[in-house]
Amino acid sequence: MPPDSNHAGEVKAHTDKTRTERYVLTLSCHNKPGIVAAISQRIFETGGNITESQQFDDPDSTKFFMRVVFTSARDFIGLSAFQSALQPVFDQFDMHVNLRDMSVRPRVLILVSRFDHCLADLLYRWRIDELHMDIVGIAANHQKATYDHLDFHGIPFHYEPVTKETKATQEARLRAVIESTRAELVVLARYMQVLSNDFSAYLSGRCINIHHSFLPGFKGARPYHQAFERGVKLIGATAHYVTADLDEGPIIEQDVERITHADMPDSLIRRGRDIERRVLARAVRYHLESRVLLNGHKTVVFAD
Amino acid sequence: MPPDSNHAGEVKAHTDKTRTERYVLTLSCHNKPGIVAAISQRIFETGGNITESQQFDDPDSTKFFMRVVFTSARDFIGLSAFQSALQPVFDQFDMHVNLRDMSVRPRVLILVSRFDHCLADLLYRWRIDELHMDIVGIAANHQKATYDHLDFHGIPFHYEPVTKETKATQEARLRAVIESTRAELVVLARYMQVLSNDFSAYLSGRCINIHHSFLPGFKGARPYHQAFERGVKLIGATAHYVTADLDEGPIIEQDVERITHADMPDSLIRRGRDIERRVLARAVRYHLESRVLLNGHKTVVFAD
Amino acid sequence: MPPDSNHAGEVKAHTDKTRTERYVLTLSCHNKPGIVAAISQRIFETGGNITESQQFDDPDSTKFFMRVVFTSARDFIGLSAFQSALQPVFDQFDMHVNLRDMSVRPRVLILVSRFDHCLADLLYRWRIDELHMDIVGIAANHQKATYDHLDFHGIPFHYEPVTKETKATQEARLRAVIESTRAELVVLARYMQVLSNDFSAYLSGRCINIHHSFLPGFKGARPYHQAFERGVKLIGATAHYVTADLDEGPIIEQDVERITHADMPDSLIRRGRDIERRVLARAVRYHLESRVLLNGHKTVVFAD
Amino acid sequence: MPPDSNHAGEVKAHTDKTRTERYVLTLSCHNKPGIVAAISQRIFETGGNITESQQFDDPDSTKFFMRVVFTSARDFIGLSAFQSALQPVFDQFDMHVNLRDMSVRPRVLILVSRFDHCLADLLYRWRIDELHMDIVGIAANHQKATYDHLDFHGIPFHYEPVTKETKATQEARLRAVIESTRAELVVLARYMQVLSNDFSAYLSGRCINIHHSFLPGFKGARPYHQAFERGVKLIGATAHYVTADLDEGPIIEQDVERITHADMPDSLIRRGRDIERRVLARAVRYHLESRVLLNGHKTVVFAD
Repeated sequence: MPPDSNHAGEVKAHTDKTRTERYVLTLSCHNKPGIVAAISQRIFETGGNITESQQFDDPDSTKFFMRVVFTSARDFIGLSAFQSALQPVFDQFDMHVNLRDMSVRPRVLILVSRFDHCLADLLYRWRIDELHMDIVGIAANHQKATYDHLDFHGIPFHYEPVTKETKATQEARLRAVIESTRAELVVLARYMQVLSNDFSAYLSGRCINIHHSFLPGFKGARPYHQAFERGVKLIGATAHYVTADLDEGPIIEQDVERITHADMPDSLIRRGRDIERRVLARAVRYHLESRVLLNGHKTVVFAD
Repeated sequence: MPPDSNHAGEVKAHTDKTRTERYVLTLSCHNKPGIVAAISQRIFETGGNITESQQFDDPDSTKFFMRVVFTSARDFIGLSAFQSALQPVFDQFDMHVNLRDMSVRPRVLILVSRFDHCLADLLYRWRIDELHMDIVGIAANHQKATYDHLDFHGIPFHYEPVTKETKATQEARLRAVIESTRAELVVLARYMQVLSNDFSAYLSGRCINIHHSFLPGFKGARPYHQAFERGVKLIGATAHYVTADLDEGPIIEQDVERITHADMPDSLIRRGRDIERRVLARAVRYHLESRVLLNGHKTVVFAD
Repeated sequence: MPPDSNHAGEVKAHTDKTRTERYVLTLSCHNKPGIVAAISQRIFETGGNITESQQFDDPDSTKFFMRVVFTSARDFIGLSAFQSALQPVFDQFDMHVNLRDMSVRPRVLILVSRFDHCLADLLYRWRIDELHMDIVGIAANHQKATYDHLDFHGIPFHYEPVTKETKATQEARLRAVIESTRAELVVLARYMQVLSNDFSAYLSGRCINIHHSFLPGFKGARPYHQAFERGVKLIGATAHYVTADLDEGPIIEQDVERITHADMPDSLIRRGRDIERRVLARAVRYHLESRVLLNGHKTVVFAD
Repeated sequence: MPPDSNHAGEVKAHTDKTRTERYVLTLSCHNKPGIVAAISQRIFETGGNITESQQFDDPDSTKFFMRVVFTSARDFIGLSAFQSALQPVFDQFDMHVNLRDMSVRPRVLILVSRFDHCLADLLYRWRIDELHMDIVGIAANHQKATYDHLDFHGIPFHYEPVTKETKATQEARLRAVIESTRAELVVLARYMQVLSNDFSAYLSGRCINIHHSFLPGFKGARPYHQAFERGVKLIGATAHYVTADLDEGPIIEQDVERITHADMPDSLIRRGRDIERRVLARAVRYHLESRVLLNGHKTVVFAD
């Protein structure tokens, strides 16, 4: 938990009847009339007050997506009361749903390699409580000394070196870390190893990677060198969910910056660091705030 | 009406039972629990299917804002049926509302002076049916010959010259044009006359101006020269509703572009043209699609 | 020539000794010490005063690029005097050079298909004298009536329909138009025909195309549909020189805009129009002002 | 010095004849023909090879500005040899010049208050050697414990608390720190104290401040709250040189980000942090690389 924030702990969060209740519900289903009315009505009847509501009616997939934030309008009601009250609606529309207490911080594991600009940025944003998460571990294929200039605030560090030959066993160890820490989200903060198909599939939908190009341009290795070779006038970065299909996962966020003929690969890498860290931080924040819903191989992002 | 579009006319629009019904409702009121549920439920019960819904719960003013687009989920229902069904909800929450048929194009009067880049751009976007409006007139303090290179498609032109001495009578004539054309929106497309307080008050809330600076910087005259003098590194433009308080009206849209020390006032003016026309076009589109709600001296813009 | 500008004509431009002389020199060569000194010194000695100078020393190709704008510091000197004085320097460093009188407007032929937003924009910028060119013709594979709403100001129009079978003869006719008009630059303003290799090679280095994607992403047909399918969060456009290798020509300018999951192909096309027209206009302006130099399959752009 | 870089020290830098020599010359003077030729020629004759050259001919002030980077084309030549060779040219044109060895890192003092996002960012960029400077000290009006999560790498820290009553003596102590550390540049990295006129004058031209608004909008205190009140659609930050005239110093760099009606002051502050740190970092880099020249109360920035 962030060292500067006063945090109550998860168990307490669910039972402390004096604090403000704040829940976020995300759902998707086949589109039919009456969904918004049913959800809104049921939340209202149960004592909830909707403070944010965003929806998307995809004419292409004919699917419906919704994100609702609500507080309790009177005394403590509790997550399970809302869950029970809404369940019939979820069932009626055959919804894929996620309902969670916004005071409970998602558990996050960060994977990193030699370049630590994204890691440093995520730690900073977490420390000042801009990113509401519990970092349950940092794992790297480089030794802890690589990050000596960063304050890990006691977050457990896992040194997990890897070679071509040991990839399978290293990924098994990473899997053990994910399971023992009960990490809900894995962030590849410039983790420069290609994951195996198995491991990618295992992480599917709960792992965000930052790719250092404006996908789909410059997939694969050394994208800044590719960009230099092609002579593009803007470079970018892409945060996406990891899938078995490398560099093809659902895109969450992208951004670019203008460059010129005078930018050599080195200056592209320098400029790229700034883009990468802000694109990754935005994607992680969107995920933590339940703003990202999967729509096939694409995303619906209810940005703020 | 745009020369390339097939348009049915207003009267017909309200009675043709075979076309798709599509309505947009915007509302604001003091925030209370149950608003979303009440509105959604009533639209659903009346046979509507919500396709877009955006809301904003202003913690600062404790006001609630909502924009809902809905179609009829079954046979023709009609605007007045929805209006009647929703009226009790509007009353219950003491709502400020606007409910309209999206197939009815708002009536727009454009005012312009010598520089015609915004006018040319609005006409182009209207012609290809990007802006869904009926241009009911173009008024200018310059003669029609000034715009000889533009195709007005038969839109009535009003030459309304003005001097310091004749401002009052000229504004009276403009008022007559607005009334005779039943214009619902007046767009000041680089109309370079300062409006009187009376005329501004008369136009309040239904007149969009493009100011050629990033307000609140560089109010008043010759903003590009002011920007040049101050040595800023970005210039911008601001589209805002006209109020009696010059350059202080509610801001709808702004944008900027990067400049350098080498940009003299002339090149700022050139670069500014591009910013002005796109900022104004966006603001007009937002207004036409009922995406802009007033929140005191600010706006709520439900952008797409 | 632009209807609003006072233009002297080419022949006169070269001989009128009272007007301001202004020349632009671009050059590239293998990098060696002393180039800047030699060029600057010779221009100075011949009576020129350098007002703009930009250079690029490519560490990758070890080539040197320079753009110099100079005026005559005293009485009329003339292009040929500067040419003669500089020739020994050009020879000494084995330079690839272009020296021209900036008052002579390059001759431009515009090719267009059904969508006229880029054409309309180029015509507008030319009319208000933002783009210093002589439009010597407009050619299209659609009939003139398609562009009835645009004022061509008497610019000759060439209707050149094309089918798969007639491509060769149509391109031969276009070639004849280019030659008879002595066009120095051909602008493909959303000309939606794939050029043959021969014709592309013929146009190489003097033809600018606007591709409606952020290359190298989404090459080929229907890029907005491709972007929609992939779920990217930004769309863009690319202006590049035409080469035999489709969508692979040297990039001059690119830009992007942010989109969301709610943008369907139709709204991508709408947003794209704005990006395309400003990217193409910038690229054309850079070319007209001799700001673009070829560096292999890339460009050096000395932007302002 | 950055912990990850190998640095030779200043004295050695001037005498080590085996390393690459790289110098940067900036100059300004009244514009006259022959300046570029004279400078280029003299550098060439002395054995220098110009690798970067940028110039600006201000038609408004009729002043000329130039930045030249050059290396030695043969054996070691040395700064003083170039200085002596160029002095007659500097004198001839009455130039204001700065000529320095690019391997000598400028000495920088950072001032900070409670918010450490800019400090953390500058330290990071310095540590990975993106900013070529020697941080000779960090001074704050908050205690060192405030920054416990940052690794200062042994950089001396100066706790200099201040109240209204003690401002004069505190500024005297800061002045002593600047003098004892021989700091060439002072960076106000969100140092939230208004400097006295005397201290501002003392720092004039060698102190960069980051103001958390897009100046000239929202001068003075709490700019994000001002922006919120005005309802602007973009917020920004401005890096400028400090002068006695508060928030009116020459602007070096600005940037903005898009916001919406839903952004409360808290989220503006969050978004603003990202803008502030990148704008300040760019401005500091431009200064360190001698890319910023003063032009009256404006700047000429020869950006890369």
